[in-house]
Amino acid sequence: MAKNFVTRDEDYSQWYNDIVIKADMAETSAVRGCMVIKPYGYAIWEMMQAALDKMFKDTGHVNAYFPLFIPKSFFSKEANHVKGFAKECAVVTHYRLKNDENGGGIIVDPDAKLEEELIVRPTSETIIWDTYRKWVQSYRDLPLLINQWANVVRWEMRTRLFLRTAEFLWQEGHTAHATKIEAEQEARKMLDVYAEFVENFMALPVRRGVKSENERFAGAENTYCIEALMQDGKALQAGTSHFLGQNFAKAFDVKFLSKENKLEYVWATSWGVSTRLIGALIMAHSDDSGLVLPPKLAPFQVVIIPIYRDDEQMLSVVQSAKKLKDLLVKHGIRVKLDDRDTQKPGFKFAEHEFKGVPIRLALGPRDLENNTVEIARRDTLTKEIISIDGIENIVIDLLNTIQSNLFNKALKFRDENTYEANSWDEFKDIIENKGGFVSAHWDGTSETELKIKEETKATLRLLPLDYGENEEAGKCIFTGKPSKGRVLFAKAY
Amino acid sequence: MAKNFVTRDEDYSQWYNDIVIKADMAETSAVRGCMVIKPYGYAIWEMMQAALDKMFKDTGHVNAYFPLFIPKSFFSKEANHVKGFAKECAVVTHYRLKNDENGGGIIVDPDAKLEEELIVRPTSETIIWDTYRKWVQSYRDLPLLINQWANVVRWEMRTRLFLRTAEFLWQEGHTAHATKIEAEQEARKMLDVYAEFVENFMALPVRRGVKSENERFAGAENTYCIEALMQDGKALQAGTSHFLGQNFAKAFDVKFLSKENKLEYVWATSWGVSTRLIGALIMAHSDDSGLVLPPKLAPFQVVIIPIYRDDEQMLSVVQSAKKLKDLLVKHGIRVKLDDRDTQKPGFKFAEHEFKGVPIRLALGPRDLENNTVEIARRDTLTKEIISIDGIENIVIDLLNTIQSNLFNKALKFRDENTYEANSWDEFKDIIENKGGFVSAHWDGTSETELKIKEETKATLRLLPLDYGENEEAGKCIFTGKPSKGRVLFAKAY
Repeated sequence: MAKNFVTRDEDYSQWYNDIVIKADMAETSAVRGCMVIKPYGYAIWEMMQAALDKMFKDTGHVNAYFPLFIPKSFFSKEANHVKGFAKECAVVTHYRLKNDENGGGIIVDPDAKLEEELIVRPTSETIIWDTYRKWVQSYRDLPLLINQWANVVRWEMRTRLFLRTAEFLWQEGHTAHATKIEAEQEARKMLDVYAEFVENFMALPVRRGVKSENERFAGAENTYCIEALMQDGKALQAGTSHFLGQNFAKAFDVKFLSKENKLEYVWATSWGVSTRLIGALIMAHSDDSGLVLPPKLAPFQVVIIPIYRDDEQMLSVVQSAKKLKDLLVKHGIRVKLDDRDTQKPGFKFAEHEFKGVPIRLALGPRDLENNTVEIARRDTLTKEIISIDGIENIVIDLLNTIQSNLFNKALKFRDENTYEANSWDEFKDIIENKGGFVSAHWDGTSETELKIKEETKATLRLLPLDYGENEEAGKCIFTGKPSKGRVLFAKAY
Repeated sequence: MAKNFVTRDEDYSQWYNDIVIKADMAETSAVRGCMVIKPYGYAIWEMMQAALDKMFKDTGHVNAYFPLFIPKSFFSKEANHVKGFAKECAVVTHYRLKNDENGGGIIVDPDAKLEEELIVRPTSETIIWDTYRKWVQSYRDLPLLINQWANVVRWEMRTRLFLRTAEFLWQEGHTAHATKIEAEQEARKMLDVYAEFVENFMALPVRRGVKSENERFAGAENTYCIEALMQDGKALQAGTSHFLGQNFAKAFDVKFLSKENKLEYVWATSWGVSTRLIGALIMAHSDDSGLVLPPKLAPFQVVIIPIYRDDEQMLSVVQSAKKLKDLLVKHGIRVKLDDRDTQKPGFKFAEHEFKGVPIRLALGPRDLENNTVEIARRDTLTKEIISIDGIENIVIDLLNTIQSNLFNKALKFRDENTYEANSWDEFKDIIENKGGFVSAHWDGTSETELKIKEETKATLRLLPLDYGENEEAGKCIFTGKPSKGRVLFAKAY
């Protein structure tokens, strides 16, 4: 399984790609930039969806579905949005194919040209706010707390499986509120929901903050974000939540009659996470033996592998393994019994190790005699033989231990790779030679931010949530001008 | 709520549309033929998805995700498929927008023309079988039992909410097998899964059968179907399962090395149901007071409405209503407590009745005194005042009763509207004046089938599963030629 598998040190980028491919998570397709999400990768997405969907519903949101296509003219309605999204899009111009009369096979029917081109949604603010206009008349109709699970398309030139693909799956929340404060609170609340999900389920610590004007969502007044650190020292934006002000309400003329009987524009938020999270999950915990999955998101938390030499042994071992599986399943554990007769145990060990199954239980004839089982941990690659009595509690405890261990390991890594830079030379040295998050003073201008990016490839990942409030005396590392506080830089995905 | 609401007898088509719109299920969008599925309609789809997804997984299937776009050339590879699907499709020809230098706003960048056009998937056999080629080498790789939840686009000219829209949501199963018999069994198995779902969850009885060659899926060797009868006497195809033979394996060159070490083409099935089922659900049970939902698919099975005159009453009534809700939720019942202070009870009664909530519980100050509650059934529109003791069991029992009652009512309706026709005049009379399913002898030719359709608009809905085996002597009602057995005709959606 792990043959021909490159280590992180040898080639981090290749290591990532090898895991995605060899752990059967996804692959490129015949369509440029579009991936096929294979069953094992999709099962992880389903686990993520279930957890997030529950969190959204617990915070009062409902799901709905809006059209895949957006009329081209909609993109021109919000001045900033158009700059950000009316770019690399898939454009539908025709609605019919036909057989070429000259024998050229199937061709696009020139008579079936659309009057107005349709854009495959890169994000849905425009079509949704066009719809909300019809749904909102009075303060009684607010708030609208709606989420959509959908596919979106952004025609990326350089793609990487999960991290950047032309088509990807995501959820996009779009809420409408009667007051500014309520919308701001919603945007902040959903940032916390994302942070909680990434930390508790993905076992990946995040920094919460605000984007600079430069990195803000096109059409937002404020973009909140969570940023995580990958093992190569690069940051990855794991989720964003936008306070949109009244920009889309104005663009699409969405007004409501307030309690005070005044006609006012509606306040908005939007927030999203995508299949990109699977890329983050892979890079956060995996090692040179392959994928490592946190138990809460592992499609199978336990794999049971029966060991036998002949048919007689097989009968009794597989029977015991089935009982073991039933016992664990009864306790809510997700278990795979790998009783394939076409593969040897060694092959199975390697395969499930590579696929990151948190716990492996191996059961042979001697275990049956001795009432034991071999239990192996994927995170530490350790194993021991233990009594099978009370195995269900041992497994449950160990799954919790592994989940915490992965989080703590990632937290330790992040802390060890977060630096304070107090001079431009120091900053450059860290970015170039160490990587990681760099906390530094900045003069607050886009101009400086862009120059830093140009010289070092580091981007401004976030302003802390208390930026400007908790002032620490300091001068911008680049210009020496006064700074309102430290912000976080890093090279990023 | 139900004001301006047309009855079934007055205008069935308008009645259907009114329910969809006024029960807040869906609406048309700014994009021609594409609908917005509103939260209440989408919640029903989520209930359907959850039930179906569990049934698919219980029968060994896993989910995956394939690209939205399909290269145009793929459609030419399977000779029959091309005839069926390379028609009314959304065609992507460009991948970039830009600002018009002449001030014309946003335009499609003529320099960003795709070398080969991409088709927004109308169904995914081609892209999936192109992928399966890479996944299948040996019999050890088989079977592949994969399902996809996705959006698809077919550029319909005449659309109706849920029943026929340009974009719709569905699931499509695509399986690959080593033997013909295994693939045939799979196609039949999934037909049974669909039938079980529609009968048990949607409370809608179905006829199972096989499509005639004429109505077969483009590229299939056999199309199994389930057909249900709507209240206007028209049939609705509720799901199809196709045995595809080796057609797609040959078109996309998918071969495997068998146990006997021979290189063979893979056998295939595909099967799907869509958001069309929501249209069927609406038409199956609803009445002149609005939507009627079977408890198993109702987003809320019970609505609790507190009744009060002043703030003092409100406090105690709403508190009791909350306790009642908690009690029912604890027993696994989906409950909405409508404690909006902005609407009167009468408005709430009408709204939830129109939205088809199976049970309404109303609680007022006198109920608190007497330890009672008013319980109302949506299916029969009856109500009574009962003791609140043991209300959880009363509600659970009543939900089961309503579920059975809806099924039995629909079954009785179908049986009363299924006729045997033994002459052409009789056939025409039933189709024209009564509607419903008509069981009649047919000579087995496409020619006759098409002539019957031309003259009566009735289509051949299905050949019974035992067609030709259980021979009943007879002559074709149209040509008088010998018949292998009765088949089912109806006008259809």
